[in-house]
Amino acid sequence: MLKQYLLTAGPTPVPERVALAMAQPVLYHRAPAFAEVLKEALAGLKWVFQTTQPVIVLAGSGTSGMEAAVVNFLSRGDKAICIRGGKFGERWSNLCTAHGVQVINLDVEWGQAVRPADVQALLDREGDVRAVFATASESSTGVAHPVGEIAELVRARDTLCVVDAVSALGAFDVPMDKWGIDVLVTGSQKALMLPPGLAFVGVSEKAWGACKRANLPRFYLDLARERKSQDKGETAFTPAISLVVGLCEALRMLKEEGLDNVFARHLKLADATRKACAALGCQLFAASPAPSVTAVRVPAGVDGSALVKHLRTRYGITIAGGQDHLKGKIFRIAHLGYFGTFDILTAISGVEMTLADLGYSFELGSGIRAAEQVLRVGV
Amino acid sequence: MLKQYLLTAGPTPVPERVALAMAQPVLYHRAPAFAEVLKEALAGLKWVFQTTQPVIVLAGSGTSGMEAAVVNFLSRGDKAICIRGGKFGERWSNLCTAHGVQVINLDVEWGQAVRPADVQALLDREGDVRAVFATASESSTGVAHPVGEIAELVRARDTLCVVDAVSALGAFDVPMDKWGIDVLVTGSQKALMLPPGLAFVGVSEKAWGACKRANLPRFYLDLARERKSQDKGETAFTPAISLVVGLCEALRMLKEEGLDNVFARHLKLADATRKACAALGCQLFAASPAPSVTAVRVPAGVDGSALVKHLRTRYGITIAGGQDHLKGKIFRIAHLGYFGTFDILTAISGVEMTLADLGYSFELGSGIRAAEQVLRVGV
Repeated sequence: MLKQYLLTAGPTPVPERVALAMAQPVLYHRAPAFAEVLKEALAGLKWVFQTTQPVIVLAGSGTSGMEAAVVNFLSRGDKAICIRGGKFGERWSNLCTAHGVQVINLDVEWGQAVRPADVQALLDREGDVRAVFATASESSTGVAHPVGEIAELVRARDTLCVVDAVSALGAFDVPMDKWGIDVLVTGSQKALMLPPGLAFVGVSEKAWGACKRANLPRFYLDLARERKSQDKGETAFTPAISLVVGLCEALRMLKEEGLDNVFARHLKLADATRKACAALGCQLFAASPAPSVTAVRVPAGVDGSALVKHLRTRYGITIAGGQDHLKGKIFRIAHLGYFGTFDILTAISGVEMTLADLGYSFELGSGIRAAEQVLRVGV
Repeated sequence: MLKQYLLTAGPTPVPERVALAMAQPVLYHRAPAFAEVLKEALAGLKWVFQTTQPVIVLAGSGTSGMEAAVVNFLSRGDKAICIRGGKFGERWSNLCTAHGVQVINLDVEWGQAVRPADVQALLDREGDVRAVFATASESSTGVAHPVGEIAELVRARDTLCVVDAVSALGAFDVPMDKWGIDVLVTGSQKALMLPPGLAFVGVSEKAWGACKRANLPRFYLDLARERKSQDKGETAFTPAISLVVGLCEALRMLKEEGLDNVFARHLKLADATRKACAALGCQLFAASPAPSVTAVRVPAGVDGSALVKHLRTRYGITIAGGQDHLKGKIFRIAHLGYFGTFDILTAISGVEMTLADLGYSFELGSGIRAAEQVLRVGV
C-alpha cells in the first residue's frame, strides 16, 4: 500500500465533514429544503467575498466563471486590458479574444507581479478601456498581483476591475467591497475545500450597470438571469446540488475558524514552506509570492519532471510541476484550503527525500527544521 | 421523523455505491489515476450513447451541454428549426435566439408529439436549414418525440439533427449512430444516476465537419478543444472530478444490468404507473408518453399544487408538479434512473392517500392493485 497525499493547489483536499455532507441523498432543487441550503450558501459566500453584493453560483469550472465575467459585462469591440503574467492571465486574454473583445495585453514576466504604474500608463494611453482583467493569485507562477491597487486605479473611471481570485479567495485577504473590485471570480476546488464543479462570481453595483448595456451573447452564463432566480431561492438551471450542499458545510467550517484565522493559517504555512525551501538551497520562483502556493525553482542538476514523478510514484505525494515553458523548471507546494502543519511537513519531507534520491547534495532534515521553527506552537 | 423520498425526474436518486465512490478523497486531474478514471468513463459513455464517436464531458448543467450543441455547430444568422412542445423545446429556441441564430419555431401543442411530416414540410419550405433541434423526452409534458424519424429526414441534407436526450438517454433506446443523430446531449442527474453537475455531448463526424465552419464564439464550451484534451486523457479545464468518479461507478452498474434490461425496467415501471393512474381515474397528459416520466392530469375538483405540497409535507415524497401554464394542472411521476418496483409503489400509494386526503372519491388501493398486476414477478 502506498498511502496517497493530494497536495496540489487545486483540487485541494476535501474535509471529511464536507465529503460526508455531499454523500447524503440528493435534494430536489425546486423544493424548500434546497432553497434553505442555497440561502445559507449565498449568505456565506457574501461573507467570504467580503461583499454586500450578490455572489452568483454557477455549475462549472472556474473558467466558466471567468467566461461569465467577460460575456456579461462587455460588448463586441470593447477595449479591455488583460494582465498576462502566467497561464491564468493568458486565459483572460484568450477568453476576451474568443468573444471579439479588443484585447490590450499587458505582458508581465512570469514570476513577477504587475506594476500598477504600468496599468495606469496603459489606461491613460488608451482612454476608453471598459475593463481590466487581473489575477489575484497566479497559481502557475505562485505570484500574488496587487489587485487592490489596480481596483483603486479604475475606481473613478468607466472601467471595471475584474479579478480572477480562483486560488486566492478564502486563502488571503481580497476584500471585494473595501478594495472596490467589480467582478470577483472563484472556484470551489481551492480555499473553499470542495471538489471542482462550482464557480462563484461576485458582482458590484457598477458592474450590474455595465451588464445592462453589455451585448455579448450569453445564456447558460447569464448572470442577471441567475441573480433573479437566486433571489427567489432557486437557480436558473439545475444546480450541482451535492456540491452546493458541500459548500454550505465548508463555509460553516470557515466561519468556525474565522476569516482572520484562516488567512493567518495560510500565511504561516506559506512562511514555513518558503523558509524550508531556502534551507534546502532552493530559490523561490515568485518575486511576490502568494500565500496559497509556493513555486520553487528546481535546483541545478535535478530533473524537475523526474522530481514530481518520483514524489508521486515512490512516495504517494501528488504536487504540481511547472506548466508550458516552466515544465521541469519549477515545482509547486500548495498550502491552500484544508491544509495544516503536517501537510506541509509531509510535502517538505517528501521533497527532501526525493531530492536526495535524485542525487542533490544537502543536509537531510534541514528543510523540516526550518519549517518546524515556524510551525511549533510554543507553550 | 418524516422519512424522505426523492421521486422526481431529475435529480434522481443516487445509488449508495455511487455516493460512496464520490465521497472518496479527490484525485488530481493531471495525474495518471484520474486519466484512468476518465478513460473508463469516456468508453462507458460511448457504450450508453451507442456510438463510436467521442462523447465530450463538460462540468455544467444539461443546459451547458445544450448551449455547446448550439455554439459549436452554427454561425450567426444560420437558420435552425426548433421543435417547441414544452419547456425544453423552448430552451433550444431561446438558446439559438440568444446567439443570433435565425430560429424557425415548429410549435407543437404541449402534451403532443411532433409530426415528422411537419418537420419535413418546414425543411422543404426553408431549404437551407443548418440544424433541427429536437427533444427526445420532453420532461415538462412527459412526451417522447420521434427523434429517430427526424434524424432520418435530415440525413441526406446539409442539416444536423441535434437532440436533447437529457431525460431519455439510458432510460430508453436512443441509439445515436443507428439513428444518425448528429449531436446528442444529456446530463448526469437523470438515468445516469448521478447528482447534477455534468453534461455529455456526443458528436457525429458530420457534426465535427460543421464544427469547423461554425463561427459562434465559444471558449468554456469549445468541444473541439475538449476533444483534443480528452484524447490525451485530460479535460481542457478542471473537471468536476468527484462526479466523474461517480460516473464511472454508475456506468459500471448500468453495464452489469445491461442496456436492454435497463430499458425493459424503465418500460415496466412506466407501464405500471400508467395503469395505476388509469385505475385511479386519472388521465395521462402525454399523447405519446415517454418511459422516463409519466405526466398525469390532476382530476377535476383537486388542487394540483396542494397535491404536490401535501405529498411533500405530509408524506415526505417529493414529486414534480406542472410548469408554466401547466402549474396545478398536472403532476409527474418519475421512473427514471435508480428506480425499482417499490419506488413506484411508494409514489402511487402516496398519490392515492393524498387524493383521498384532498377529498377525491375513488377506491383506495385500486392504483396499487393495477401496478402490482404489472410488477409481480410470477414464479
